[in-house]
Amino acid sequence: MNLPLRVKIVEVGPRDGLQNEKETISAEVKIELVDRLTKAGFANIEAASFVSPKWVPQMATSTEVMAGITRKAGVIYSALTPNMKGFEAALAAGADEVVIFSSASEAFAQKNINCSIAESIERFRDVAAAAKQHGIRLRGSISCAFGCPYQGQVTPEEVAAVVKLMRDLGCDEIDIADTIGVGTPRHVQAVMHRVSQEFPVDQISGHFHDTYGQALANIYASMEVGVSIFHSSVAGLGGCPYAKGATGNVATEDVLFMMNGLGIETGVDLDQVVDAGQFISQHLGRKAVSRAGNAIAAKRLA
Amino acid sequence: MNLPLRVKIVEVGPRDGLQNEKETISAEVKIELVDRLTKAGFANIEAASFVSPKWVPQMATSTEVMAGITRKAGVIYSALTPNMKGFEAALAAGADEVVIFSSASEAFAQKNINCSIAESIERFRDVAAAAKQHGIRLRGSISCAFGCPYQGQVTPEEVAAVVKLMRDLGCDEIDIADTIGVGTPRHVQAVMHRVSQEFPVDQISGHFHDTYGQALANIYASMEVGVSIFHSSVAGLGGCPYAKGATGNVATEDVLFMMNGLGIETGVDLDQVVDAGQFISQHLGRKAVSRAGNAIAAKRLA
Repeated sequence: MNLPLRVKIVEVGPRDGLQNEKETISAEVKIELVDRLTKAGFANIEAASFVSPKWVPQMATSTEVMAGITRKAGVIYSALTPNMKGFEAALAAGADEVVIFSSASEAFAQKNINCSIAESIERFRDVAAAAKQHGIRLRGSISCAFGCPYQGQVTPEEVAAVVKLMRDLGCDEIDIADTIGVGTPRHVQAVMHRVSQEFPVDQISGHFHDTYGQALANIYASMEVGVSIFHSSVAGLGGCPYAKGATGNVATEDVLFMMNGLGIETGVDLDQVVDAGQFISQHLGRKAVSRAGNAIAAKRLA
Repeated sequence: MNLPLRVKIVEVGPRDGLQNEKETISAEVKIELVDRLTKAGFANIEAASFVSPKWVPQMATSTEVMAGITRKAGVIYSALTPNMKGFEAALAAGADEVVIFSSASEAFAQKNINCSIAESIERFRDVAAAAKQHGIRLRGSISCAFGCPYQGQVTPEEVAAVVKLMRDLGCDEIDIADTIGVGTPRHVQAVMHRVSQEFPVDQISGHFHDTYGQALANIYASMEVGVSIFHSSVAGLGGCPYAKGATGNVATEDVLFMMNGLGIETGVDLDQVVDAGQFISQHLGRKAVSRAGNAIAAKRLA
């Protein structure tokens, strides 16, 4: 099986990674983090979320962050937009891509967004239309694609059904997310294979959590079936709300170490990502959750 | 590519995992750890090391440990034996398998054992003959098979050369060890493919370190080329002497989570391994280094 020659790493640390941090992080620190990631070479950074600050207080500074970052031509700065109000704010802030979301698990949709999967997609119809009208990229994120904390198993067919709905809304890219980190390589291949029957495989991304340590094996297995876009979070920012103290997003440093070893081009400089990871981890007052990041930092000290 | 239907997990925590712990761990605790691992279902446990206590003080209680454990029929209890003195002690202690070792890196051999690779193999000739004479299994362990802290790159050819020497000594099983954790999947496949031209692939084992988070991806990739024996350490016991604070042996819980997800039989009960990991981690006064172990423990508390 051939692996892709090049992959796109979507750095989600500044948004998905930081959003559940309890201590308020200043816009200044977030701006420096995004700027460091831009300099490191990412083509796509999830930088903001225009949700109600009542629900996600950490993201209240999103407009300030988007205004303060130093943009690099060609880099996509993405923002999560739960509704038209969020979309308007993202538009005003100059987001290059807006992210809408649903779940592959009916039980999760009901518990988390109080509606069915189909209803959740309907609610995004106006955002999708507005994105198209303004020429802004539209990304759809599908949570619980490999398992659900409420319903347990999720089938490839359930994931494919949501992919079709998001495709029909006009999504340019669709994320297949392992929200609780329970996927293993062959299950991941089965899901990726099934969804690529509904949507071009080069517009599908894998969003893996390292809760059970499986993320890198899953990324490798995804590449074997043609997936070439992956989400990761510098320093492994972002825990797992379903298992307190457990790991969340796969660490970008670990992903880059693998890609470098495989000779797969990412355009991203690992050393600068390690620096960015040390920067934000020191700011948060804890050790990075990246194995490669910590090993490289330890070697530097030695 | 077909994966094996069944793999053997060699649990190395009680020896390789604990040997560098600074605080002395009582024989009683080690015995309980081995007994818990036996009950969890491992077919092979690395339980002791008959090295000079001057060099590895933590292993000074090996005779006591081997005498105190409750053995299960069919389970292989292995012991490291650096020389005939160690072999005699292992024989007296009733070890089922003795482990000899060398390196794929000439620089590492010189620095670590003060001789060439060829000399290091010569020194084991008497141990190998004695093992055969007593009908004890002989395992050879090859460190630095994917990279070396001193010479950097190590080629598949260099690894194959040591495999041939160990095969000719009569080894029943040969470990290909990523001592510094720098291997990535395709490199691992190249090495495993090369060494399986010299030695039966079903007697080759992969010993991966998770220093850069690559171990599970490497295990998965190894299985794709037919390897079906893997070493791992409960709770991720054992750090990395070449990068202080970094991760060492891949955690058994993470490996089992993947095997369970892949439907590959191991004969080992993950829940009991998580218990054993919590037991020894509590004893050592720190959190386990296993992502799956910690996630499962966190879920139990929730």
